[in-house]
Amino acid sequence: MIRVAVAGPRGRMGALAVETMITGREFLLVGVLDRKMAEKADTLAGAVPIYTDMLTLAEEAKPDVLIELTNHESVYPNTRDAIMNGIRPVVGTSGLTEEQIGKLSELSGEHGIGCILAPNFSIGAALLMKFASMAVKYMPDAEIIELHHDGKKDYPSGTASLTARMMAESAGTGSTEGTGDGRGTDVSGIPVHSVRLPGLLSHQEVLFGGEGQLLTLRHDSFSRQSYMSGMVLAVKDVMNRDCLIDGLDKIIG
Amino acid sequence: MIRVAVAGPRGRMGALAVETMITGREFLLVGVLDRKMAEKADTLAGAVPIYTDMLTLAEEAKPDVLIELTNHESVYPNTRDAIMNGIRPVVGTSGLTEEQIGKLSELSGEHGIGCILAPNFSIGAALLMKFASMAVKYMPDAEIIELHHDGKKDYPSGTASLTARMMAESAGTGSTEGTGDGRGTDVSGIPVHSVRLPGLLSHQEVLFGGEGQLLTLRHDSFSRQSYMSGMVLAVKDVMNRDCLIDGLDKIIG
Amino acid sequence: MIRVAVAGPRGRMGALAVETMITGREFLLVGVLDRKMAEKADTLAGAVPIYTDMLTLAEEAKPDVLIELTNHESVYPNTRDAIMNGIRPVVGTSGLTEEQIGKLSELSGEHGIGCILAPNFSIGAALLMKFASMAVKYMPDAEIIELHHDGKKDYPSGTASLTARMMAESAGTGSTEGTGDGRGTDVSGIPVHSVRLPGLLSHQEVLFGGEGQLLTLRHDSFSRQSYMSGMVLAVKDVMNRDCLIDGLDKIIG
Amino acid sequence: MIRVAVAGPRGRMGALAVETMITGREFLLVGVLDRKMAEKADTLAGAVPIYTDMLTLAEEAKPDVLIELTNHESVYPNTRDAIMNGIRPVVGTSGLTEEQIGKLSELSGEHGIGCILAPNFSIGAALLMKFASMAVKYMPDAEIIELHHDGKKDYPSGTASLTARMMAESAGTGSTEGTGDGRGTDVSGIPVHSVRLPGLLSHQEVLFGGEGQLLTLRHDSFSRQSYMSGMVLAVKDVMNRDCLIDGLDKIIG
Repeated sequence: MIRVAVAGPRGRMGALAVETMITGREFLLVGVLDRKMAEKADTLAGAVPIYTDMLTLAEEAKPDVLIELTNHESVYPNTRDAIMNGIRPVVGTSGLTEEQIGKLSELSGEHGIGCILAPNFSIGAALLMKFASMAVKYMPDAEIIELHHDGKKDYPSGTASLTARMMAESAGTGSTEGTGDGRGTDVSGIPVHSVRLPGLLSHQEVLFGGEGQLLTLRHDSFSRQSYMSGMVLAVKDVMNRDCLIDGLDKIIG
Repeated sequence: MIRVAVAGPRGRMGALAVETMITGREFLLVGVLDRKMAEKADTLAGAVPIYTDMLTLAEEAKPDVLIELTNHESVYPNTRDAIMNGIRPVVGTSGLTEEQIGKLSELSGEHGIGCILAPNFSIGAALLMKFASMAVKYMPDAEIIELHHDGKKDYPSGTASLTARMMAESAGTGSTEGTGDGRGTDVSGIPVHSVRLPGLLSHQEVLFGGEGQLLTLRHDSFSRQSYMSGMVLAVKDVMNRDCLIDGLDKIIG
Repeated sequence: MIRVAVAGPRGRMGALAVETMITGREFLLVGVLDRKMAEKADTLAGAVPIYTDMLTLAEEAKPDVLIELTNHESVYPNTRDAIMNGIRPVVGTSGLTEEQIGKLSELSGEHGIGCILAPNFSIGAALLMKFASMAVKYMPDAEIIELHHDGKKDYPSGTASLTARMMAESAGTGSTEGTGDGRGTDVSGIPVHSVRLPGLLSHQEVLFGGEGQLLTLRHDSFSRQSYMSGMVLAVKDVMNRDCLIDGLDKIIG
Repeated sequence: MIRVAVAGPRGRMGALAVETMITGREFLLVGVLDRKMAEKADTLAGAVPIYTDMLTLAEEAKPDVLIELTNHESVYPNTRDAIMNGIRPVVGTSGLTEEQIGKLSELSGEHGIGCILAPNFSIGAALLMKFASMAVKYMPDAEIIELHHDGKKDYPSGTASLTARMMAESAGTGSTEGTGDGRGTDVSGIPVHSVRLPGLLSHQEVLFGGEGQLLTLRHDSFSRQSYMSGMVLAVKDVMNRDCLIDGLDKIIG
């Protein structure tokens, strides 16, 4: 059994993580990290101890892994402190800067403590990115369609942009032909089409065309529950790591 | 059996139409209209008479229907002359102007001779347009994705534009919010996304989003053969018409 | 504004209907029908009167329409009593027998009071069924794929079976060739394939194949919210009816 | 430039291969192997020499690679003789038995001559199989839908069966629960649904369901041209091999 602590247990993702760790047979939830909740109670659901600082959490609860689900202000110090206290962080919070990731990578390597950064990605989305990066080497002509509810005003989606950048990197191309209305947003030379309709959730499709054929990779995320699959995978995987891994797709082999 | 003549029998569509009419049990191919072919032979495949003018075709072959598959120069005079000689035209050639369509409509009504205009549409595409026009009344939020081979440089496709215009007309809207790169070309207030990839043939998808649901209509045209289905339907249908019908979707009920 | 009452306001669908009627500008929620809730309070949310019998509801609240969302035991007497009291029923509850539907149809006609039966169908599903019934007349070769979460043990789904039967009726065919494992369940001569996977919600696809082409109609239902669209449509539509309509697809034109 | 010979140049695949090798800049077509054609002419298209036996082909044309596209009778001796004459075979012909593959594998290893078996697979289909084998390790709940024209009477398709077996092998499962009509054919514990409709070409979809998500991998093969992509990849790849590789998916990394 892997001893797990959750930082940020009151958020929507945090609450899901707590529930997932409590119900998962391979995990033992040994504590949560939360400054404000502790003022009201000293255990969660009458059983899990609540800690207000990393040091006490580390000494008393002795977690193997910390699931980091706070916010962009706390994520860096929490991740850093976890590593320095011998706890392997699995980070689901976004907002780390390139510089902060660099520092955490150094720290992780020095201490030989594994750390996985996997903000907002379900296992299915990670597989899609991995496969897209592989496929583009053999079928370089590709376009992306991402579909979201009409409440999402920005485009293209972060996942679609990241997928396009990973594909461009993999294919060794940097062609920026530029597209235009109707032909999508150009991201690293790959057209990204953004559909916005009421009712839609979160959907992404990568199309690869070749002589006489079409390869389509599609991921539909129907609920927040989908993120838990990647979290569980990362918690298990980080136990065998001794450095920082940036992205769930890097641990898929 | 319906007596049919084909104008433009040497083109790719014309040759397919000839073959379809010869093999179809409900049809009798009584002649073809072709000025240049006649110089070399006076029958097609040793059996079907070749005519060089409409009057002789009408008098000798007595066709019920003329399938018009020539080019944008001949389509208007051929269609007009057919009506005036009591032959019902089924027009698969594109290029008629709004004015010409108006004149043909008048002529068709005066003579009580049915005429169907169905340029380039398969029965599946006609059904999709019909359904899209109906659905948009109940689910007004819609976007179109059209996908073609990368040899097709123009966008959006004619079929996608026509579909969008028909939808806008049906929904009684004229909202032209304007979209932009990544959010498609605005056609009558409906975003149209154009994918161009090698290997693709001709594909069109209309997505309707509503609270908690998505309705998708998709048509894939894999070969020119698909146009024959609409042609056959039109040839049968025109026998019961006494005026001009603009579009295959109008005869679907 | 249409005066609406809801029978069964405490169920999941009923609660959604109450919310929808309260927030909808075109509707005025004038009362709910609920025997047990009335014991505890005499208004819903401090404003909507709760009634325990149809007669009092009819006399005091004077609803134009009753949305019926109780259970298979109450649905028949409630619908019957509504018609007899001059209230137009929109029935979202399933479980009415053929015989009961027959009696309600008679009653509805006699009194000239409209009544719409629309159990469990979203507007998108109704459109799909309507379109499938139309398309099969022109493209008779069709198969259905229905996809649901793996908790749904029965197959094929009720919606898929109903769609297949409606298609067979429309096409005038009764071919029952029989299929087999891998080739789907035979429903009225149409193969229905049933996919069951964790994560899936409720999805249905009807494929029509023809020479050189494929027409695909697909409906995804992501949440219960999708049923409200059909309910709203039916509540408006029933105002202009004077007989019983069995199925949302019948009011789509 | 890689020196290539084609065995079976008159078949449909062979003719395509000849054309592809002639137009490809990285290849030099140095000869074809064909017993019967040689009786009529001694060069192909007035330039490529025609050989009737492997030994002369090897000595005079000195090919690096032999593309084997004959039939199930000639494929084994041709492949064996190519290896023994120092020519690397790329085999597109199906029909080799397990025993024959075993012998060729030994021979290939002994001589240090690469050999790739890739019957009937396009690069897209190979990618799909590879990805399906990877994904099933993380999302074990999967089903396959394969769609073909109604002329294909057998089911499930060979590609779908092979995909299912590869997935089962990868996931380390051997669960054979058995399915049934409507729930697909059970292949190594994975349900395979077979759709047969006129107009369809060759399409395969693998669906992976997980908590709150769906991952879909789809391959559409629109024409025989699609096989050429895999052939070209294999011809290049075999130059760097010194043993037998069974399957295009094994050379994708």
